[in-house]
Amino acid sequence: MGWMADETGLGKCAANYVPLTPLSHLVRAAEVFPEREALVYGAQRTSYREYHARVSRLASALVTAGVTPGEVVATLMPNIPAQAEAHFGVPACGAVLNTINTRLDVATVAYILDHGGAKVLIADSQFLPLAMEAIAEMEGDAPLVIEVPDPEEGVPGLGEQVDYEDFLATGDPDFDWILPEDEWESLSLNYTSGTTGKPKGVVYSHRGAYLLTMGTPVSWRMTLFPVILQIPPLFHCNGWHHVWMAPMLGGRVVCCRNVTAKAVYDAIADEGVTHFGGAPIVLNMLINAPEDERRAFDHLVRVYTAGAPPPAATLSRIEALGFEVTHVYGLTETHGHVTECLWQEEWKDLQGDARAAKKARQGVPYPMMEPSAVLDRDGKPVPRDGETQGEIGLRGNAVMKGYYRNPKATAEAFAPGYFLSGDLGVHHPDGYLQIADRAKDIIISGGENVSSVEVEGVLMHHPAVLLCAVVAKPDDKWGEVPCAFVELKAGAEADEAELIAFARERLAGFKTPKAVVFGELPKTSTGKIQKFELRKVAAGA
Amino acid sequence: MGWMADETGLGKCAANYVPLTPLSHLVRAAEVFPEREALVYGAQRTSYREYHARVSRLASALVTAGVTPGEVVATLMPNIPAQAEAHFGVPACGAVLNTINTRLDVATVAYILDHGGAKVLIADSQFLPLAMEAIAEMEGDAPLVIEVPDPEEGVPGLGEQVDYEDFLATGDPDFDWILPEDEWESLSLNYTSGTTGKPKGVVYSHRGAYLLTMGTPVSWRMTLFPVILQIPPLFHCNGWHHVWMAPMLGGRVVCCRNVTAKAVYDAIADEGVTHFGGAPIVLNMLINAPEDERRAFDHLVRVYTAGAPPPAATLSRIEALGFEVTHVYGLTETHGHVTECLWQEEWKDLQGDARAAKKARQGVPYPMMEPSAVLDRDGKPVPRDGETQGEIGLRGNAVMKGYYRNPKATAEAFAPGYFLSGDLGVHHPDGYLQIADRAKDIIISGGENVSSVEVEGVLMHHPAVLLCAVVAKPDDKWGEVPCAFVELKAGAEADEAELIAFARERLAGFKTPKAVVFGELPKTSTGKIQKFELRKVAAGA
Repeated sequence: MGWMADETGLGKCAANYVPLTPLSHLVRAAEVFPEREALVYGAQRTSYREYHARVSRLASALVTAGVTPGEVVATLMPNIPAQAEAHFGVPACGAVLNTINTRLDVATVAYILDHGGAKVLIADSQFLPLAMEAIAEMEGDAPLVIEVPDPEEGVPGLGEQVDYEDFLATGDPDFDWILPEDEWESLSLNYTSGTTGKPKGVVYSHRGAYLLTMGTPVSWRMTLFPVILQIPPLFHCNGWHHVWMAPMLGGRVVCCRNVTAKAVYDAIADEGVTHFGGAPIVLNMLINAPEDERRAFDHLVRVYTAGAPPPAATLSRIEALGFEVTHVYGLTETHGHVTECLWQEEWKDLQGDARAAKKARQGVPYPMMEPSAVLDRDGKPVPRDGETQGEIGLRGNAVMKGYYRNPKATAEAFAPGYFLSGDLGVHHPDGYLQIADRAKDIIISGGENVSSVEVEGVLMHHPAVLLCAVVAKPDDKWGEVPCAFVELKAGAEADEAELIAFARERLAGFKTPKAVVFGELPKTSTGKIQKFELRKVAAGA
Repeated sequence: MGWMADETGLGKCAANYVPLTPLSHLVRAAEVFPEREALVYGAQRTSYREYHARVSRLASALVTAGVTPGEVVATLMPNIPAQAEAHFGVPACGAVLNTINTRLDVATVAYILDHGGAKVLIADSQFLPLAMEAIAEMEGDAPLVIEVPDPEEGVPGLGEQVDYEDFLATGDPDFDWILPEDEWESLSLNYTSGTTGKPKGVVYSHRGAYLLTMGTPVSWRMTLFPVILQIPPLFHCNGWHHVWMAPMLGGRVVCCRNVTAKAVYDAIADEGVTHFGGAPIVLNMLINAPEDERRAFDHLVRVYTAGAPPPAATLSRIEALGFEVTHVYGLTETHGHVTECLWQEEWKDLQGDARAAKKARQGVPYPMMEPSAVLDRDGKPVPRDGETQGEIGLRGNAVMKGYYRNPKATAEAFAPGYFLSGDLGVHHPDGYLQIADRAKDIIISGGENVSSVEVEGVLMHHPAVLLCAVVAKPDDKWGEVPCAFVELKAGAEADEAELIAFARERLAGFKTPKAVVFGELPKTSTGKIQKFELRKVAAGA
């Protein structure tokens, strides 16, 4: 250890040690880029000076409303400016930001509000009915609800809760932010489905989020003043932290309520978008857009894609349109993207399947991460032979603190000194990884994780169902959709429509199976259902 | 503080917390960019794979030689590959790197070796005589000396010490690096003159160095694969940390034993140099180079200049040659550059003096720094009126740990919660600073700090000298040179040549006054010498 013979007087002090936090980027931007546009939403333009002042008002108003440091403030919003403001304003009062997925069902939202213990819920008017139904189902105390209407986009206020602008008006634009005293303090709480029915609350530290914002520009070849279209929902890994990163670069964030091909092309042509992230489904949408929704542009647009490797057909068509695609990888538990497929110079002339095969590779760590690993069952690295499968392990400063109020799951996830991703992969001799399978059978539908176990759990409640297994079925629009395989009880009857309707009553739409196949399920000798066999059937169904 | 109601299981562990260190960049580069060129020196090319292996050998050999974590390993080298290797290899065995200025005099080198307690000294053959003389003058134990010959550059080995390559051969290329367990551990020790005669040992942490390497690409508009010409001596703020940063970006570092206009132009044209740092004197050298030493190039070269604002004439001529100049500011105590003159769009058409006036501004903090301040005597910020002078205070994660074995000086420097730079400045209404004067009267000659107090101390030893004051005299070649003002004792006699020779015997060449002016010194009513009056005289002398 590098402690010198005499370290007297060499400790941390106010001059030489400041806890790392992404909040510092907005403090600095308000000083350095006060008049630059920070947020764009339709005709709305917010400068960094205004952004900082509105965020300060929000933090101040939350304090006045009784929120104390360490308490949770939840949001239920699409990617509108108020959601971006919450990313700074909630932690600026010392609170922890819990962005809730707007596509969840009532019971799950209620569970999250209870489990996180939200004191305040800031909800977009479109999702206010969902919020109020969930609050009605809560076991604990109801949060204070703040409503964010969006009349310009056809979402008028319902008027029964505190209005967001009125709430901001109670705050002080010169409020002194409550910054972390320890960079390990909790910044945000993101619930993920994962493998069990109950969502797990992933906790991020200020340190982890800051370091991801510092590493991302290196991977994304980003210099000052990027224009970032915020496509990844801010309730997913906090939108890959792009909203926290943008002020560091004096960047402009273009907000987008509904991601349509037209909205994306317009943002590129009208706002000069240089960077955005999106699942392959977004790329397909751009490729398949009708001619009259497309716009010409003559600058390079860098696209991060994640969730699944981009297929060859998608890749060749999207690159021809002027987009440069980088395949990145990460999970909610890693703050978002933490490894990438760094494109090597010698690959530059590859085309078609050969190109897609390389683009599908993974594992080049961002600068704030340690080298990735593929681990065997004992937690040891597998040989780098491109063949031996193991579980992908990730390690570094952009790995979550752990799961909230679930130390057992946290300890299991971190057991080998890496975060166990649940994804199976192989390690190539050149150091790249390749994701072979999702060990935990997660289905990714439209960029959303669907836990097969959760869907199976619902179907198992149907009186006619003996056994079921849910796997991913490839889908042109959503990438994947859930497909259920069901063994009925002897003498019992149920048809596909009935089971889908049964599931739909209990699950969010995107989690509901789109097809049901009846018959005996293939099992291993130990009785484990062979899902890989079912996937083959689903792919052809 | 953002601690949640229940933080059970949310602590730091191997998976989610890794101490920040610039060493991680080379570990990662050896994985991610193994075949890319890391170091270039004449015909020598070192790949990242080889670089990592040689660094591992160095660390291993140092351990075998008895170096233990926290001990000091010193170097006395120009910017050759072995000096770059020491930047990783010395801390990779847990030791602290003490790069010593090769231009210092024997007594000062001896003082530094004693004060730091160096166990090993790695010296270039050109500076080996200086090293051996200094060791002979040491009070403490002599270090083990490793000699680095450079025969290709006309510096053959002297052969009496351990040869560097032989030493590396004793090391293990697969040595497991001893990485910090705490990012606050000491990484390097840089002696600075400052205001007192005795140099002070500035200690850097792994954390501070890492964060500077993360912030620099943002300021310098640097994306992957830059080609960096290492002009700032690695014994100055560790060369502004560019050698530590380069592996993060897969960059190439071009080493340069002697900085000449020809060497710089050749590196730009032959190696495609994209970035380099240098004092204004380097810019002047490029401008004034004879035609046959210049080379054509058609890419933009980004230049950091520091030490003094670039004069209008220099700026207009260097920019016309294809260089983009950014004026940066920092001190040894801040790891190098930590603020910059961020160029605003609305300034783009300014020319001549108006342009230089803006380029002279300062104070835009890098992303790892907090906003800069100009402080009054009570440590409170002065008004942002562009007129009220105060002392520039810097605060953030790239401020030193403190001065080694000098807690008193450390406490004074950090007294107001900022590092007191010793530089006077004003704060403009737009948030930029302007450096008005060097409060501590440091003379910057060829990019080297010269302490006027140290030079005065030497002259005061001459039997004929009653009183003296040393100030900066503008110089076309060196920027500034020391100029001495002397009052002789009554009846005593000494001429300019005698005093210069007297000083030269006791000081490094760059510290020796280039002119001596005799006469009574102007003093304030309290007896303080009015150096600002002397500067006016020196400027005309």
